[in-house]
Amino acid sequence: MSSIRVARTKLVDAQRAVAGRARPFSSTTATMSEKYRTERDTFGDLQVPADRYWGAQTQRSLQNFDIGGPTERLPPPLIKAFGVLKKAASVVNVGYGLDTKVGEAIQQAADDVISGKLIDHFPLVVFQTGSGTQSNMNVNEVISNRAIEILGGELGSKKPVHPNDHVNMSQSSNDTFPTAMHVAAVTEIQRELIPALTELRDALDAKAKKFDSIIKIGRTHLQDATPLTLGQEFSGYVQQLTNGIERVKDVLPRLSLLAQGGTAVGTGLNTKKGFDVKVAAEISKITGLEFKTAPNKFEALASHDALVEAHGALNVVACSLMKIANDIRYLGSGPRCGLGELSLPENEPGSSIMPGKVNPTQCEALTMVAAQVMGNQTTVSIAGSNGQFELNVFKPVIIKNVLQSIRLLADGSRSFTKNCVVGIEANEKRINTLLNESLMLATILNSHLGYDNVAKCAKKAHKEGTTLKEATVALGFLTPEEFDEKVRPELMLYPDEE
Amino acid sequence: MSSIRVARTKLVDAQRAVAGRARPFSSTTATMSEKYRTERDTFGDLQVPADRYWGAQTQRSLQNFDIGGPTERLPPPLIKAFGVLKKAASVVNVGYGLDTKVGEAIQQAADDVISGKLIDHFPLVVFQTGSGTQSNMNVNEVISNRAIEILGGELGSKKPVHPNDHVNMSQSSNDTFPTAMHVAAVTEIQRELIPALTELRDALDAKAKKFDSIIKIGRTHLQDATPLTLGQEFSGYVQQLTNGIERVKDVLPRLSLLAQGGTAVGTGLNTKKGFDVKVAAEISKITGLEFKTAPNKFEALASHDALVEAHGALNVVACSLMKIANDIRYLGSGPRCGLGELSLPENEPGSSIMPGKVNPTQCEALTMVAAQVMGNQTTVSIAGSNGQFELNVFKPVIIKNVLQSIRLLADGSRSFTKNCVVGIEANEKRINTLLNESLMLATILNSHLGYDNVAKCAKKAHKEGTTLKEATVALGFLTPEEFDEKVRPELMLYPDEE
Amino acid sequence: MSSIRVARTKLVDAQRAVAGRARPFSSTTATMSEKYRTERDTFGDLQVPADRYWGAQTQRSLQNFDIGGPTERLPPPLIKAFGVLKKAASVVNVGYGLDTKVGEAIQQAADDVISGKLIDHFPLVVFQTGSGTQSNMNVNEVISNRAIEILGGELGSKKPVHPNDHVNMSQSSNDTFPTAMHVAAVTEIQRELIPALTELRDALDAKAKKFDSIIKIGRTHLQDATPLTLGQEFSGYVQQLTNGIERVKDVLPRLSLLAQGGTAVGTGLNTKKGFDVKVAAEISKITGLEFKTAPNKFEALASHDALVEAHGALNVVACSLMKIANDIRYLGSGPRCGLGELSLPENEPGSSIMPGKVNPTQCEALTMVAAQVMGNQTTVSIAGSNGQFELNVFKPVIIKNVLQSIRLLADGSRSFTKNCVVGIEANEKRINTLLNESLMLATILNSHLGYDNVAKCAKKAHKEGTTLKEATVALGFLTPEEFDEKVRPELMLYPDEE
Amino acid sequence: MSSIRVARTKLVDAQRAVAGRARPFSSTTATMSEKYRTERDTFGDLQVPADRYWGAQTQRSLQNFDIGGPTERLPPPLIKAFGVLKKAASVVNVGYGLDTKVGEAIQQAADDVISGKLIDHFPLVVFQTGSGTQSNMNVNEVISNRAIEILGGELGSKKPVHPNDHVNMSQSSNDTFPTAMHVAAVTEIQRELIPALTELRDALDAKAKKFDSIIKIGRTHLQDATPLTLGQEFSGYVQQLTNGIERVKDVLPRLSLLAQGGTAVGTGLNTKKGFDVKVAAEISKITGLEFKTAPNKFEALASHDALVEAHGALNVVACSLMKIANDIRYLGSGPRCGLGELSLPENEPGSSIMPGKVNPTQCEALTMVAAQVMGNQTTVSIAGSNGQFELNVFKPVIIKNVLQSIRLLADGSRSFTKNCVVGIEANEKRINTLLNESLMLATILNSHLGYDNVAKCAKKAHKEGTTLKEATVALGFLTPEEFDEKVRPELMLYPDEE
Repeated sequence: MSSIRVARTKLVDAQRAVAGRARPFSSTTATMSEKYRTERDTFGDLQVPADRYWGAQTQRSLQNFDIGGPTERLPPPLIKAFGVLKKAASVVNVGYGLDTKVGEAIQQAADDVISGKLIDHFPLVVFQTGSGTQSNMNVNEVISNRAIEILGGELGSKKPVHPNDHVNMSQSSNDTFPTAMHVAAVTEIQRELIPALTELRDALDAKAKKFDSIIKIGRTHLQDATPLTLGQEFSGYVQQLTNGIERVKDVLPRLSLLAQGGTAVGTGLNTKKGFDVKVAAEISKITGLEFKTAPNKFEALASHDALVEAHGALNVVACSLMKIANDIRYLGSGPRCGLGELSLPENEPGSSIMPGKVNPTQCEALTMVAAQVMGNQTTVSIAGSNGQFELNVFKPVIIKNVLQSIRLLADGSRSFTKNCVVGIEANEKRINTLLNESLMLATILNSHLGYDNVAKCAKKAHKEGTTLKEATVALGFLTPEEFDEKVRPELMLYPDEE
Repeated sequence: MSSIRVARTKLVDAQRAVAGRARPFSSTTATMSEKYRTERDTFGDLQVPADRYWGAQTQRSLQNFDIGGPTERLPPPLIKAFGVLKKAASVVNVGYGLDTKVGEAIQQAADDVISGKLIDHFPLVVFQTGSGTQSNMNVNEVISNRAIEILGGELGSKKPVHPNDHVNMSQSSNDTFPTAMHVAAVTEIQRELIPALTELRDALDAKAKKFDSIIKIGRTHLQDATPLTLGQEFSGYVQQLTNGIERVKDVLPRLSLLAQGGTAVGTGLNTKKGFDVKVAAEISKITGLEFKTAPNKFEALASHDALVEAHGALNVVACSLMKIANDIRYLGSGPRCGLGELSLPENEPGSSIMPGKVNPTQCEALTMVAAQVMGNQTTVSIAGSNGQFELNVFKPVIIKNVLQSIRLLADGSRSFTKNCVVGIEANEKRINTLLNESLMLATILNSHLGYDNVAKCAKKAHKEGTTLKEATVALGFLTPEEFDEKVRPELMLYPDEE
Repeated sequence: MSSIRVARTKLVDAQRAVAGRARPFSSTTATMSEKYRTERDTFGDLQVPADRYWGAQTQRSLQNFDIGGPTERLPPPLIKAFGVLKKAASVVNVGYGLDTKVGEAIQQAADDVISGKLIDHFPLVVFQTGSGTQSNMNVNEVISNRAIEILGGELGSKKPVHPNDHVNMSQSSNDTFPTAMHVAAVTEIQRELIPALTELRDALDAKAKKFDSIIKIGRTHLQDATPLTLGQEFSGYVQQLTNGIERVKDVLPRLSLLAQGGTAVGTGLNTKKGFDVKVAAEISKITGLEFKTAPNKFEALASHDALVEAHGALNVVACSLMKIANDIRYLGSGPRCGLGELSLPENEPGSSIMPGKVNPTQCEALTMVAAQVMGNQTTVSIAGSNGQFELNVFKPVIIKNVLQSIRLLADGSRSFTKNCVVGIEANEKRINTLLNESLMLATILNSHLGYDNVAKCAKKAHKEGTTLKEATVALGFLTPEEFDEKVRPELMLYPDEE
Repeated sequence: MSSIRVARTKLVDAQRAVAGRARPFSSTTATMSEKYRTERDTFGDLQVPADRYWGAQTQRSLQNFDIGGPTERLPPPLIKAFGVLKKAASVVNVGYGLDTKVGEAIQQAADDVISGKLIDHFPLVVFQTGSGTQSNMNVNEVISNRAIEILGGELGSKKPVHPNDHVNMSQSSNDTFPTAMHVAAVTEIQRELIPALTELRDALDAKAKKFDSIIKIGRTHLQDATPLTLGQEFSGYVQQLTNGIERVKDVLPRLSLLAQGGTAVGTGLNTKKGFDVKVAAEISKITGLEFKTAPNKFEALASHDALVEAHGALNVVACSLMKIANDIRYLGSGPRCGLGELSLPENEPGSSIMPGKVNPTQCEALTMVAAQVMGNQTTVSIAGSNGQFELNVFKPVIIKNVLQSIRLLADGSRSFTKNCVVGIEANEKRINTLLNESLMLATILNSHLGYDNVAKCAKKAHKEGTTLKEATVALGFLTPEEFDEKVRPELMLYPDEE
């Protein structure tokens, strides 16, 4: 019998390995490399793993910021956005005189970053320098070494492609990092979130249409109220999603403004006039999404209001999803002792000891997503409010939370759509039973019998546990036939004709 | 000498008086009335203060919800918005057949609500029914009794103007309360917040222009960086405000959609086709602000996403103001041992024992406003996410927080503008001293001497506590004249010409 | 017929009156005084209302901080705590040489502050100086003038009782304000919150005992689960409250440590050795509650961790109450189309058009309280994290939120206890019906028939809509008698005997 | 030249691979296995990777909850705690009759879980069933298969060790998951957080002692105030940490109460009397930490108040660290244009273009940690407040956030201690210069010259930019010698002797 070789494919964790701290129960042991090469920065020489493109500044950050482990790494969409930015800057820089061969190698290396192939070469965590300088350098170092490799040079030699002089040309961490933040957030919203929300909206809309003629009891304050159709009820959810999609789209104009060109403090020192506009245009070209240069670079470096605003929209979507998921799980509660108006798909065993138990697990996952996003709102707001003078130095934690919220909302919506919404069925029999037991249908008799008499009927039925019809007939107000003719829920679904 | 009669003008507090609980240290003793009249609702008779227009349902709420005292009352702008709504509904109802004389009396009474004259007749607190039903009834009762009075009838008789049949005609608490929420929020934003933010933006812009030629050291990570002008620094604040105003305006379209016409559960049962559109038009006319009927009334009753969204914009403004106020107080810190680049107006004695102490008190008030608004964001989000089926029953706490945030931001901005921003002066001498002491100006020598040589100059100056000029000359790289010619901060404020 | 004179008893609002800004719809018009006297501070002379004890610094703050209006005033318990502190300081100061006559007049005036009689003389809002200096001066000025009056002097003369030299003797705003914060919070927790939570716990415990033998269906994931007693279910709520009370008590030791004696920056400059210990002892004596001097005054001025911690406990209580109130309103939902296991007291008409509609309004008020408190947690945390060097200048907004949370939780709990919990009835018939319809009782047959056979029974019943008994008998596994003997919920309420 | 084989060691991601969705830029491509075996649950057969121990329910969850990717997996300390629990349960179950051989194999397999060796076999994410049922089954499946392997059986056969019947014996997901939550949180607090905070406290305390005789200017409202020693200033931070450690310890008693024994709804159905007490004792034995059984299992399943409370303590620590890190970076600001009282260690190049630039990066990382924890507080509170009936189904998101906060605070504190605090140096010359320039030292002359005369000196110095001494001498109040004798900051550091 061949036992499974435990931990054969351990998670890569250069970070802790290098840091040399053995945590009792860390997921991150990381002996992925036994060979090293020497890299250097202005602080001196450092050994880096031979099979990694990063250089001395990345390595130094790994050692100095042993906080949180691999799950706290900066998220892949940000790294990709950095790839986009570095490619765009290189294209523009060639226009300003950067050697074409160097420029093309940078662009090819940047393409490798964009494709995700190099993701394991970006090991830095969120909790580092608040400007993200070290991650900008990580990108510069990886692209530099990869470009050197492409051009047949020696890794670590900084020749013929220097991380600062060439990859970072005309740039500063202080304008690249916020640029990458915006590019990543816009891209993820456009490519992931809006499609996912649209799918969910459409799935709910299909249900709203399907359930259009199923009349059910309404509930306000959780208490029985006048009727509506199940389709109407779902149409409210559809509207929430429609609005949510609009909300998210509405933050894009300000989120699409890029800090690039501000360099160190917003003045643009060390870059060229026009660089900012051209980089934004090039990024638009690469991504197929519209970006513009920010009208005021001081604001773009020192505040992250646009991301706080964007997260505000994500937060509203989270609130909407919490409401919708809660409704659906309550309407699907039972099977015998709950409301039981909906049947939700059974996706997994609910309990090992209780047969027939199906749990609204997709609703649960989605409401947990909502809770996470609502908390991220607090983090992003605190971080966004704490800029100082020419720079906000909570950049990594802001973008981490924004991208996490986007992804969770997108993935959560997709999962909820596919594994729950499309399979929702109406329990029409149950819905109809409840509708007919309700005393609130009495409301329509107000104009026939007067409020006081109707109240008598309802109270008698309530007290004696009978139907409204029985009570009304017993009190002699109507015959059974008259009752059936007048008390028709289908008349209670719309305003009166004028 | 006649001593001041303590507590001659006690705060009115019908609430606790009626509830009969004597709290040891309550601000609310309230013996405003020793006469009572009898009012009645379906639960029976109740005594209400003879000099108040409210009726039995209001009185019952006072007794049942003794939570928080007068400071927790629903805010005046909501009551005013209810006045607007009731007037508009009455105008439309006359069109649908409401007796003209009754309608006009209602409208006149509603005008008294709008004007604020009747504010003491709205004693109910936030922490009541989550639909705000009791406040809708409070409005119905007050307008009914006031209209009865206008028409010469007897208070409490419900004749000839009935609170439900006439004042609440074609309406439900479930659509009136959210309508009033939106009308109040939009009105306060338009009338209070946007003007206040605009004033602040303009005041900052005036300073940005005035400080346009004052070159100062930049600061990133709180550390000395390359220079910029004080005007550029302020221009970042201006941009934050400009964006903030846009953000707030951008929430208005969805916030201007009104639930009115949905009645109890969103179907519009018990109202007339077209009532919704006409009421929205009439409200627009009365307020001079654009309102439309909501496209989906189920969403409008069951969720308050539009208010969560609106608060998201307020939250961004709070974050912006926190940043700006923090910068200004740090730049104004001193007078001797801080940064000291700005002088803030002296508005009050700073200390009884420390002469010359002036505190940035307006900044402190504004940052406290920001902290409050950022917390309100959490409250509004939690409340907004907790709608159930056809109704969200966290309505009062949502609108309370939204209106508080609007008012605090508006008042705080105005106070900050008037009592701080307009009086800010630049300490040019101090700014210039710091600028010239900075080692970061060395950056501009990179292209002349090379990075390594410049680093030597800067490090020598840092180590020996000399100026950069002294170090550079001592190392023989430049003559004093050459240094002065090349190291000119005014060349470091913009990107290079192409 | 005598019409009600509108607005006869307007709310006092010196603030806006003085500030001279007429807000279109302010509740605060305030022409309470037409006479003025002159007061002075180091900035010069100011007119103050003749019938108010406050002086120039209070008046100046009213003019400079027109933010939020009367509802944003610092809460009465803080003012009372200031009265306690000033009395205690005066007693100790007499021991250090303060003139006895002056000291006694101060103590008598402080008693008037403590009693609440002078509450209208404390008009300052939260959004002022972040150290609360102006409120400390407000107290000094009021006590000084009241003491002068007691001694037959002239208001505003500062003789023979000077606000700074005598009332504020050996004190600084920087240590008095945090001292008053702690005294107020501890007092409100001890006098208001703990008794209110204890009442609620006891009321729930009485229900738990009363419902001890009512077996009901359990619900997990909102889905039917194995049974428990209604008493067991309520016992969980009781435990939450019991723990909540303990949690709140557990913050008292750190909250009872007082900053007094630190004066301006924590060193105690300008006070006497031993003053801190003696003042704490005197405050303990006056309040009957235990207070001690803080071991490190630098921490006590510069941070408010103890209040952030205390609010953390309030936040847990809010979460508990949210859970309990939600459960109760869902269990009481209906009357026909919800779970309907509980009947909640009917306190007010639920709807003007829907007879029999009773809403769980007390649950709604309590969950709104919870949402407010949970948002206040964010505000308090942000404010608490923003101390700078020797002082945290978010003091007023911290204590405002802490005291609001305490009061809302106390008032909300009392209202919920009195108007809801004590009147809750179990609908035993409904509970029993649901229990017997449940398929989850099948669980107990696992050991008799095996999991697979039981699953067949449950699934057949579920599919065909029959009872479990019918299905089991139809499948021939058991006779009706055997079923009744074996499937007994009362056997499912406890672990097996060993 | 050997190019680096890109992506040779890809992160394992069974999840997305199985789910079959190719995300454009996912970090998770995951082709870790090309062989599969068949596992089964009550829903049918499923293929699982041959080199993984998990079974059908785990696999099903991977497919149904494709939300967030590997970084959203449940954290290792929770998995370890599950190992502890399963081992303890097995020990106790052997006492109740579980076959010894089976029991021992389970215990051995559980040891492998505890050691971390099997971490790659726990791929499930937070956003799954809200009860964590699937993660409980993941543990059951992995331990079952590993135990089968140990005993020489066939993976997937469930013989001789069944995941439910043996590994989960006498347990339910509903009591195991909360038990593991508490065990994980307590363990991480005890083993990671408290030692890390203690290290930081001790490092700050060493500095406080070292800086004990360095007198510096105090700052309140950011403005110059009376002096204190740098040691006194640091002593405030020490006290914050000392209190923080106490706060965290104070939550342990309630956090150490375990739900185990409550099974499905809290009644303990299907377990044995005494099982709960024995499991808690066994867990204490394994971990070396004290745990007890919860007094009320209904509360322990349906609420997570103890974790909300625990996070409240973490939140206070975050606020403390925010304050301390902010102070330190402002005191270290410069080198020329800031406060410059402290020198922080230089750990990495600050800027590629600005020589001499050192950034307070450890402060930045720590304040970002604080912002994250403060947001997690909101998430945990929302999740904790949303329990329903017999179960809170936000369990995974609660424990994820609690454990993240613990780890970030622990790691962040350690990093801050090691890479910042221990290397902080006082710039005594700068501190002394600022102290002597301050006008606030005048305060001590009040008793000699009277407040008014002192004010004249201070204002003259302020106006003319001279020292206080120059102004005082120029005004003829004192000779230079007299000034030096009287104005001695060292007399301003303590209260006066009685």
